[in-house]
Amino acid sequence: MTEYTLEDQAVKDKLYKLIDEKHDKMIEIRHYLHQHPEVSFEEKETGKYIADFYKDMDVKVEDNYGDGYGVVVTIDTGNPGKTIALRADFDALPVQEETGLPYASVNDGAMHACGHDGHTAYMLILAESLYEMRSDLTGKIKIVHQPAEETPPGGAQGMIEAGVLDGVDAILGVHMWAPIPYGTVECTTGPVMAGRSSFKMTIHGKGGHGSAPHLANDANVAASFFVTAAQTIVSRRVNPFDMATLTIGNFDGRGSFNVIKDSVFLEGDVRFMKDETCAVVEKNFKNLVKGMEIMFDVKIDLFYNNDYPVLNNDKELTEKIQKSLENSGIKEIKHLDFEGRESASEDFAYFTQNIPGTYMFVGEMPDDGVFYPHHSPKFIANEKALGLTAKAVGAATLDLLNN
Amino acid sequence: MTEYTLEDQAVKDKLYKLIDEKHDKMIEIRHYLHQHPEVSFEEKETGKYIADFYKDMDVKVEDNYGDGYGVVVTIDTGNPGKTIALRADFDALPVQEETGLPYASVNDGAMHACGHDGHTAYMLILAESLYEMRSDLTGKIKIVHQPAEETPPGGAQGMIEAGVLDGVDAILGVHMWAPIPYGTVECTTGPVMAGRSSFKMTIHGKGGHGSAPHLANDANVAASFFVTAAQTIVSRRVNPFDMATLTIGNFDGRGSFNVIKDSVFLEGDVRFMKDETCAVVEKNFKNLVKGMEIMFDVKIDLFYNNDYPVLNNDKELTEKIQKSLENSGIKEIKHLDFEGRESASEDFAYFTQNIPGTYMFVGEMPDDGVFYPHHSPKFIANEKALGLTAKAVGAATLDLLNN
Amino acid sequence: MTEYTLEDQAVKDKLYKLIDEKHDKMIEIRHYLHQHPEVSFEEKETGKYIADFYKDMDVKVEDNYGDGYGVVVTIDTGNPGKTIALRADFDALPVQEETGLPYASVNDGAMHACGHDGHTAYMLILAESLYEMRSDLTGKIKIVHQPAEETPPGGAQGMIEAGVLDGVDAILGVHMWAPIPYGTVECTTGPVMAGRSSFKMTIHGKGGHGSAPHLANDANVAASFFVTAAQTIVSRRVNPFDMATLTIGNFDGRGSFNVIKDSVFLEGDVRFMKDETCAVVEKNFKNLVKGMEIMFDVKIDLFYNNDYPVLNNDKELTEKIQKSLENSGIKEIKHLDFEGRESASEDFAYFTQNIPGTYMFVGEMPDDGVFYPHHSPKFIANEKALGLTAKAVGAATLDLLNN
Amino acid sequence: MTEYTLEDQAVKDKLYKLIDEKHDKMIEIRHYLHQHPEVSFEEKETGKYIADFYKDMDVKVEDNYGDGYGVVVTIDTGNPGKTIALRADFDALPVQEETGLPYASVNDGAMHACGHDGHTAYMLILAESLYEMRSDLTGKIKIVHQPAEETPPGGAQGMIEAGVLDGVDAILGVHMWAPIPYGTVECTTGPVMAGRSSFKMTIHGKGGHGSAPHLANDANVAASFFVTAAQTIVSRRVNPFDMATLTIGNFDGRGSFNVIKDSVFLEGDVRFMKDETCAVVEKNFKNLVKGMEIMFDVKIDLFYNNDYPVLNNDKELTEKIQKSLENSGIKEIKHLDFEGRESASEDFAYFTQNIPGTYMFVGEMPDDGVFYPHHSPKFIANEKALGLTAKAVGAATLDLLNN
Repeated sequence: MTEYTLEDQAVKDKLYKLIDEKHDKMIEIRHYLHQHPEVSFEEKETGKYIADFYKDMDVKVEDNYGDGYGVVVTIDTGNPGKTIALRADFDALPVQEETGLPYASVNDGAMHACGHDGHTAYMLILAESLYEMRSDLTGKIKIVHQPAEETPPGGAQGMIEAGVLDGVDAILGVHMWAPIPYGTVECTTGPVMAGRSSFKMTIHGKGGHGSAPHLANDANVAASFFVTAAQTIVSRRVNPFDMATLTIGNFDGRGSFNVIKDSVFLEGDVRFMKDETCAVVEKNFKNLVKGMEIMFDVKIDLFYNNDYPVLNNDKELTEKIQKSLENSGIKEIKHLDFEGRESASEDFAYFTQNIPGTYMFVGEMPDDGVFYPHHSPKFIANEKALGLTAKAVGAATLDLLNN
Repeated sequence: MTEYTLEDQAVKDKLYKLIDEKHDKMIEIRHYLHQHPEVSFEEKETGKYIADFYKDMDVKVEDNYGDGYGVVVTIDTGNPGKTIALRADFDALPVQEETGLPYASVNDGAMHACGHDGHTAYMLILAESLYEMRSDLTGKIKIVHQPAEETPPGGAQGMIEAGVLDGVDAILGVHMWAPIPYGTVECTTGPVMAGRSSFKMTIHGKGGHGSAPHLANDANVAASFFVTAAQTIVSRRVNPFDMATLTIGNFDGRGSFNVIKDSVFLEGDVRFMKDETCAVVEKNFKNLVKGMEIMFDVKIDLFYNNDYPVLNNDKELTEKIQKSLENSGIKEIKHLDFEGRESASEDFAYFTQNIPGTYMFVGEMPDDGVFYPHHSPKFIANEKALGLTAKAVGAATLDLLNN
Repeated sequence: MTEYTLEDQAVKDKLYKLIDEKHDKMIEIRHYLHQHPEVSFEEKETGKYIADFYKDMDVKVEDNYGDGYGVVVTIDTGNPGKTIALRADFDALPVQEETGLPYASVNDGAMHACGHDGHTAYMLILAESLYEMRSDLTGKIKIVHQPAEETPPGGAQGMIEAGVLDGVDAILGVHMWAPIPYGTVECTTGPVMAGRSSFKMTIHGKGGHGSAPHLANDANVAASFFVTAAQTIVSRRVNPFDMATLTIGNFDGRGSFNVIKDSVFLEGDVRFMKDETCAVVEKNFKNLVKGMEIMFDVKIDLFYNNDYPVLNNDKELTEKIQKSLENSGIKEIKHLDFEGRESASEDFAYFTQNIPGTYMFVGEMPDDGVFYPHHSPKFIANEKALGLTAKAVGAATLDLLNN
Repeated sequence: MTEYTLEDQAVKDKLYKLIDEKHDKMIEIRHYLHQHPEVSFEEKETGKYIADFYKDMDVKVEDNYGDGYGVVVTIDTGNPGKTIALRADFDALPVQEETGLPYASVNDGAMHACGHDGHTAYMLILAESLYEMRSDLTGKIKIVHQPAEETPPGGAQGMIEAGVLDGVDAILGVHMWAPIPYGTVECTTGPVMAGRSSFKMTIHGKGGHGSAPHLANDANVAASFFVTAAQTIVSRRVNPFDMATLTIGNFDGRGSFNVIKDSVFLEGDVRFMKDETCAVVEKNFKNLVKGMEIMFDVKIDLFYNNDYPVLNNDKELTEKIQKSLENSGIKEIKHLDFEGRESASEDFAYFTQNIPGTYMFVGEMPDDGVFYPHHSPKFIANEKALGLTAKAVGAATLDLLNN
């Protein structure tokens, strides 16, 4: 095992200074993006905006990369070395903004309610800064501007298939995260974000009048038994040491009070931190569905999909980055958390299935401690986190290029 | 026990002849009413139309009777004898008609989809006929035109409180019934229409994200357990010799697939053929609700209402009417059924709680055997049933007045 | 329809007198039988005792009739007429008697806890009395002493297959019934005793330690879901106007508190008053079982048996007997009930599937009103009911022979 | 933080040599103990045997320590230093041995099926060895021979209350573990053995006949709903990142197939790896019980006990021991596992609630890889593990005394 040596502090400080100088520009970019959100797979203008940003730099820019509007930018230092990829997603959500911000969305029914505007803003500034000090560095930096993170199958897979990871040694990504206080960086080895499956199912019974149940086949009753039986998947089928959830968020058995429902629609969500758990849940879920059809003499249309795999942070790479963070000298970092995990899901997981990757969380809770969760129409980010993120990812990049 | 003697056949034949002669008028009345439906408690014009019908007869007409637009007409034969009440309901349903009939409803969102237009049409003609031959008869006939049968608490109670049954010896009512073939009359002793209770309940849990169920309290899960537990009321609590149903027709647990529901709304219907069963269901249902609150740490808002009691046909009266029917000489009657019961509910039940009453069903299935159920926007009656009904009720009235 | 004329009262009174004179003998017979009970299909000595009773009479005695120890005795009056069969069952139960009676069972583990000793005692005396006055009568009387009523498939089917009903016009049977007060006779048309199915099922999961459920497959959980789902058969599958019960009386999931059960045994009972209900329950029950196997990945061994059909009293015959009872002049009869039904089951049902039959209940509640249910080790009969029963069945027989 | 320095290898090697020389004696002790097992709280002879072992050594022996037959031996090196406690449990199980071993149990119904005979055997030899080289060492060694580990409340609490941990700096314990191959030592920081709660509950309904459920209150139905509802505790109440199991190992609803159960007995087991989970399960379990009483109108007698807490290995202490193990030079150690955890429970947990403690697992799987689980009547230990355990615990003790 070769020793992991850190980049000189002077080089890092130079980077931090560049980032600080570009602060206003970074905020301006973020506001522009926030005002002009585009939902997954429709981010045409955003992709163009990003590509334009690089137009005066001596870098390789590949746009419309993958299935959608991805933009891949390669900064070649000219010096031999590693190739490190940095990924930022840029799609928005189909949410009607309710923040009342001066730079609120002007696109009806679309909003950067997950904060990908911030991800893109910090990344552009970090890229520009690294570009400007490229002569101090070795190897190559590949900026991966990824579209469509929010909607399965996501944008990552298309970019991977198009070759974005070819020749890349490691990939880094960040979610700025409102539930974590500003000043905290979370960087943990192993599974850090849950994998997700989802399902939709229609249970077809037979309608009728409430006073004559024997002539009908009550889909609400069948669906209710299904929900109770589905509890056993987590309670009895999954290894109790492994994380798993199964939620039926949508039970649509609406109807007239005295009319027996002919069909009921259920929709739900599964989370797990191991691929093995994903398979256990799917297998047992499908058994429940098949058995239900016979038990209650119903017909069930099931759509079950494994949306996103578990996001696994590479142990060796992540431990290196933990060391970087501990020695970065970034004064804005107040707290490092090397044990935190999040039960949300991310298609960054696909990158980590191919090459070593590390996904971090950077706190962006507003200073007053009151935050709206991601995806809320009132979601507001703490913009101070942009600079911190740029510096943290930058420092890690410098250290990784150097080894 | 005094002997029950039947009226002379000649008198009955005179009545049948009068009814036959007024056939076209009866159909005309029905078409007018069908075209101008008014929903429960809003039947102002219909009430006026009915009262107007009697304006040239020497009868006592009381309008706006009870809580709403009831009309009570007393035909006094001048001869001493019994007082027999005949009830016909006249409200329509909030249904948008889809029959395409030339005399379809002109009132948007209202339709005589239960057939009360026919009830009123036959009754007006029967009343007129009885009026015209009053000198042949004894006692008094009280025509009870009742509004608001369709909507609890119904129109019957208000009319009873206003005194409509004072001095009345017996009351008869009829539902023309599409699931029964034309030519059949159903007249059974004891409980013939189910009592009904209904409930609405909101189960309040605590919302949250599907990946963190421990921070939430899943109302869909609690509601599903409720539905399964509610099955035990019919399966284990009610006397297995007694009729009972409990249906949850509305399970509104709609939501986003991955969001834990904070509250779920359930609505349902209970039927029974004995008042005792009504009480057993209510008691056990409320136990389930109270217990659920503790089991799943939820709060439940429950509205439980005993809408209509069981409709009990008086044994002695009904056996007399069965004898009338067997000896009526009405050629249109092809089949008598003295055992049929219906699981629908009727506020005629309130009359039978106060005085002896008999409620009959007269078949009005279309001749081709294809029918839409009552309350369907495509409901069509077999108009031939009107004359049969007028004659059958008329013959029974003559026999009862005579004893 | 020929008119039903009653036998002369003088003839009946002669019969009653004979029965009264033989009262002590009847009690003696009953005590002997009570002391020497034999369980179903093992009633060798009882059969012999019965056959011996007739040895000095000029009647045809056929013993070992059917599959077991049945005894059929034909009393031929020599005069042309009907053939009426009278059935009495004579098997005991595998119960250890706890009555403390002086004539308590001397056979360990066997007891006449259902009262068939009384059935046989009254029948022997009635048969002897009818024999003695045979010259006053017409037709033939066939006494059917049936073994093995208590244990499916019962003794009735074997006797029927052996021809016991050949040439028989009608068959009567009685259960003396402790929950009904002495002095009451219950005689109802239509279904009067429930049909019964029963089931045994073993659910095979996979054993394991409570702390590692994912390596096991918890049979107690699967069985519990089965019990909850089985409630829907009565609550949603059976016509709510029809009687049905489904009870799981035995849930054997015993084990160590922290060990996951590998298999669980369930056993239960189904009752119904219509053959159609029997089929509905069986079909849906088997669906539940098949579906469960898939839902919970268990293997289920099911034994489901339709033990006894519904016992249907023939309408015409039973109405005749009701008339007999109303005009019998038996002073011990205080109350006639023509509406009562019992949810217990009887293999007399097989006779009524072949020829018109009537099954009655005669009250034998102790005079103090305190009774132990049939099958209890403390069951005690009110012996006064024996004479009443002999007279009531005798009077009905006389009237039936006469028509 | 003071540096943790390891003891000289020469001292350790001396210890290993002593242990090797006493190997036959150690096996002999184990065989003797195996042949003479005594169950929890009845280990009088075993306690005496242990105390006798030390009779010729110059050590402090305290017997009948705590609630039962505990023996505490203090080896004072005479040199100033730390006090390290070493704990070995010595009770047997109420199991009838089926191994066929030449030294099988001679005590009917008792067996060392969990391997505590081995724990005691290695510990006596290790104590004797440490005693013999005491002049090379510093501080004190306190040997804690603990009885009654198998049966709550266990023997640990009584010894703690009696002062066994007074002045002790750290405590070590070991389970030789058949599911782990010989040659492996498992030593993990944090929670390593599950906490356990257990419950017994009787659900009192009302008995009756299967054909009349409305007169009874079916305890089997109520109990089955309880089992299904109890699944939600793990599936929805516990943090999905935390380990939890709830097993109902005993569902005693035995009865006659057609008799409704009046009461049902349930017994079960709960496991968890965090005290917080213990509380969450208990609270929600009790809610289920209380709610059930109302839902199904039953009375429930509940006994719920938190048997053993989570066993938490102290982080700092355990990391020191991990270092010891890595540098021990014990040639029998083939594999170190610093991540393994076991879902079984141990009352060693109580020691770790008071002072820093570390509990390790030493593989004792038979060489052919076939093993019977602990508590099986066929359980067989791999005796080679005894020496390895003595050396590993000895080395750790030397290193800890030295710091």
